[in-house]
Amino acid sequence: MNWHRAKPSRYSTRMTCAPDATILAALERRLGPKGFTRDAQEMAPWLTDWRGSVHGQAAALLSPASVEEVQAIVCLAADARVAIVPQGGNSSMVAGATPPVDGRALLLSLRRMNAIRSLSPEDNVAVAEAGVILSDLHDAAVGIGRRFPLSLGAKGTARIGGLISTNAGGTQVLRFGTMRSLVLGIEAVLPSGERFDGLSALRKDNRGYDLRQLLIGAEGTLGIVTAASLRLVPAVGARAVAWVGLRTPHDALTLLRRLEASTGEAIESFEAMPAEALEMVLRNIPATRAPLTGRHDWNILIEATAPVGAPDPVERLTALLGDAAGDGLIEDATVAANESQAEALWKLRETIAEAERVDGPAAKHDVSVPVSVMPDFLVEASRAVERQFAQSRVLAFGHLGDGNIHFNVQPPVGADGKAWLAREGAAVNAFVHDLVVARAGSLSAEHGIGQLRLAEFARTADPVRLGALRAIKQALDPLGIMNPGKLVPANVDSSLETADVTR
Amino acid sequence: MNWHRAKPSRYSTRMTCAPDATILAALERRLGPKGFTRDAQEMAPWLTDWRGSVHGQAAALLSPASVEEVQAIVCLAADARVAIVPQGGNSSMVAGATPPVDGRALLLSLRRMNAIRSLSPEDNVAVAEAGVILSDLHDAAVGIGRRFPLSLGAKGTARIGGLISTNAGGTQVLRFGTMRSLVLGIEAVLPSGERFDGLSALRKDNRGYDLRQLLIGAEGTLGIVTAASLRLVPAVGARAVAWVGLRTPHDALTLLRRLEASTGEAIESFEAMPAEALEMVLRNIPATRAPLTGRHDWNILIEATAPVGAPDPVERLTALLGDAAGDGLIEDATVAANESQAEALWKLRETIAEAERVDGPAAKHDVSVPVSVMPDFLVEASRAVERQFAQSRVLAFGHLGDGNIHFNVQPPVGADGKAWLAREGAAVNAFVHDLVVARAGSLSAEHGIGQLRLAEFARTADPVRLGALRAIKQALDPLGIMNPGKLVPANVDSSLETADVTR
Repeated sequence: MNWHRAKPSRYSTRMTCAPDATILAALERRLGPKGFTRDAQEMAPWLTDWRGSVHGQAAALLSPASVEEVQAIVCLAADARVAIVPQGGNSSMVAGATPPVDGRALLLSLRRMNAIRSLSPEDNVAVAEAGVILSDLHDAAVGIGRRFPLSLGAKGTARIGGLISTNAGGTQVLRFGTMRSLVLGIEAVLPSGERFDGLSALRKDNRGYDLRQLLIGAEGTLGIVTAASLRLVPAVGARAVAWVGLRTPHDALTLLRRLEASTGEAIESFEAMPAEALEMVLRNIPATRAPLTGRHDWNILIEATAPVGAPDPVERLTALLGDAAGDGLIEDATVAANESQAEALWKLRETIAEAERVDGPAAKHDVSVPVSVMPDFLVEASRAVERQFAQSRVLAFGHLGDGNIHFNVQPPVGADGKAWLAREGAAVNAFVHDLVVARAGSLSAEHGIGQLRLAEFARTADPVRLGALRAIKQALDPLGIMNPGKLVPANVDSSLETADVTR
Repeated sequence: MNWHRAKPSRYSTRMTCAPDATILAALERRLGPKGFTRDAQEMAPWLTDWRGSVHGQAAALLSPASVEEVQAIVCLAADARVAIVPQGGNSSMVAGATPPVDGRALLLSLRRMNAIRSLSPEDNVAVAEAGVILSDLHDAAVGIGRRFPLSLGAKGTARIGGLISTNAGGTQVLRFGTMRSLVLGIEAVLPSGERFDGLSALRKDNRGYDLRQLLIGAEGTLGIVTAASLRLVPAVGARAVAWVGLRTPHDALTLLRRLEASTGEAIESFEAMPAEALEMVLRNIPATRAPLTGRHDWNILIEATAPVGAPDPVERLTALLGDAAGDGLIEDATVAANESQAEALWKLRETIAEAERVDGPAAKHDVSVPVSVMPDFLVEASRAVERQFAQSRVLAFGHLGDGNIHFNVQPPVGADGKAWLAREGAAVNAFVHDLVVARAGSLSAEHGIGQLRLAEFARTADPVRLGALRAIKQALDPLGIMNPGKLVPANVDSSLETADVTR
């Protein structure tokens, strides 16, 4: 008894239609000149993904300014069986917001829905529309003495709707979790055109299946998130930022567990990078300098915070690192003496991706394994990859405390990177993902599936899990109009489905 | 375009069949004498709910000892379209694990699957089977220097599978959230009989819809949770427990926000109860005594903790409460000087339900509203109820910091409680729930829907939400065999459905 046999996907992504002149005219009338365009130049920036590698086409770019306008779009599209691709800041790492190449989809940008509807210090809640830029929400929270505790490199571009739809992570997951744990309520337009009003920010609500959790990380395939109630936390009183040099990722994890046991929830970030990553940053990014004398095989950036009125965490972190040095667990450490030193340390971590771009292309992977498995994985997987792909070099860095590493494989020194990637990229991806799957890990820890990881997801996923995903997709989006070709691998073994393509 | 029209529920709960002799014999063979019984005496304790008010019948009581046995049961039941009612500790407050009266369902107890499969201090993870009793998990975590941070009155009875399937709350939600935020992975048997292996405790995993979150709080209607990976946190080094007397719930919330701002995440519990609740406990529970001199309209129990090696929180909490008294925010306070005093304070909170039972029946409600709305709600709703239902008395207490209050309405003094409840109970329920819904609250904050709240849920729920719930239920359990009659209100407006009943 398989779901896909019991409920064949009659309307696959191939079944969506191009919008005809009537529906386009109706959309233009409903949305007005600010909300509707078919101009190639205006549409161009939104048809290519952030990495510049995936290009799509769209019948029109729609920019609704209200939930009602989003509902009107979805109703029109559903009636005509036209596909909709929702888009926020267009900073997906997996081309999750880039439309298909057939040009039949409507690209729906949430950028005009950018109001912060309310801020409540009493409830520790912000209600933000999908188009709010992350750094704007940060500022608004600070303005009422609170903090929104999720941050990442694209914070000046990424928008709330996209961050929710991709269950974004970042550098503070260790303490506060991913977006999933920060969303208290969601307003969304479902594939039926109905409005789901789940904004009420209840801390506890056990009335049935959690539809909010289902929409988080759904990449717009089950509906369009239009607003969310988000959890705020107390403002930071003081922070301590440290740089530690040590020998192995195993020692790093031991250090993390020790710090956690002694400081409770104070440790917010614990970012690991090998000597090669630090050297690459120092080489490629201006105005950076090594924080420690001497070379250390592994470097850890640590941030600890304390609430307003509580003791400054610098003293305690310094003492704990002193103990660790005394025990021989770490080789060297420095704690930032002021905010500008702290910023300088963070810059070394945050510019790794930029520094990589200077060095040229690489086969990139965003993988997770259970935290305790990660140190061994780093050692063994690096060795296996470098053995399998001659002279390739692994550069693995990231959120060690979350078990999430960006595991990038660089071409041999002196090789034509682009040609190497074209030739070896797919094989490298499959090889790395197989190593991850063998350790019960995930081939997408925080970037999602989108288009770029769809084939690998389909190749490696548990069929039981895939069956359930398809059943849910089919149940909530029976017409298959919501962001087709993303996240949910097409069901290719149903004869009913192919039979239907003829219509 | 409504889901229930697009995908009518062909197999409603009325469509399940009684197991015939062949299937019963097959189950008996497969499960052996320890895993199968039809003996009335053996089954009796599990056919009535915890409150003793709902009685069901079952064709057999099945107690599988492994996932494979659960799969075998589900496969046999699915083939014969026989309903399955999963049961853990049978401590549901809404009769969620009590079988229907028709006696056609198989009662499936998880109590023999009670192994703690692994404990990892490195990963801060415990893998526990569904039948593990909560207090046993507490002990196991302490044994490795960690803590499982969810607790509630029924901890000696409630089992992990039930706690997950009802998204249990309790007294530490303020800091650690409900079960939903403590489950890292789930193993479950789906209605198809397939085994969903989602145990891998990845901190980050963005591969599609979160099936684990869908199973949490699903009350066994989408499958049977057989094991889970659960988050552990560092052990408590020291705790401070305080009792505070103050004037209003508004002052209480102000105090909570102040303490939170000054201590970060140290405040784990913030439980409110009115003078009447304290007096009832002192009257009905032996060996209790008033913690403060004088009567205070509202009483707050506060617990703050500190990790091992960090400063004892007693001094800081004492100082902060001293400031609050100096400002006139609170009337009086005492901080427990030792563990036995702390236990005595907690006993006053934890025996409220027991003390209520001595006083007789009441119309009970487990409601939530946004936290900042709760103080006004308490005042206004109590007044409205006591005006509407002559001489009734509201006793509202609980998790003020979560916006979750147990809002109980007692019969007039001297009245026959049982008769009053039979006469007025339904009207009181509807009246209270309407007050909650008017404030965008929930009529089930932590107890779930089960059977007892099903009609009220159906009456008050947003049709969009109901449509989505039904579509998901239909997609994952197309035969309708999983815990029918619980959580998901039947769809009564589909003509197709009634047509099918004739078969």
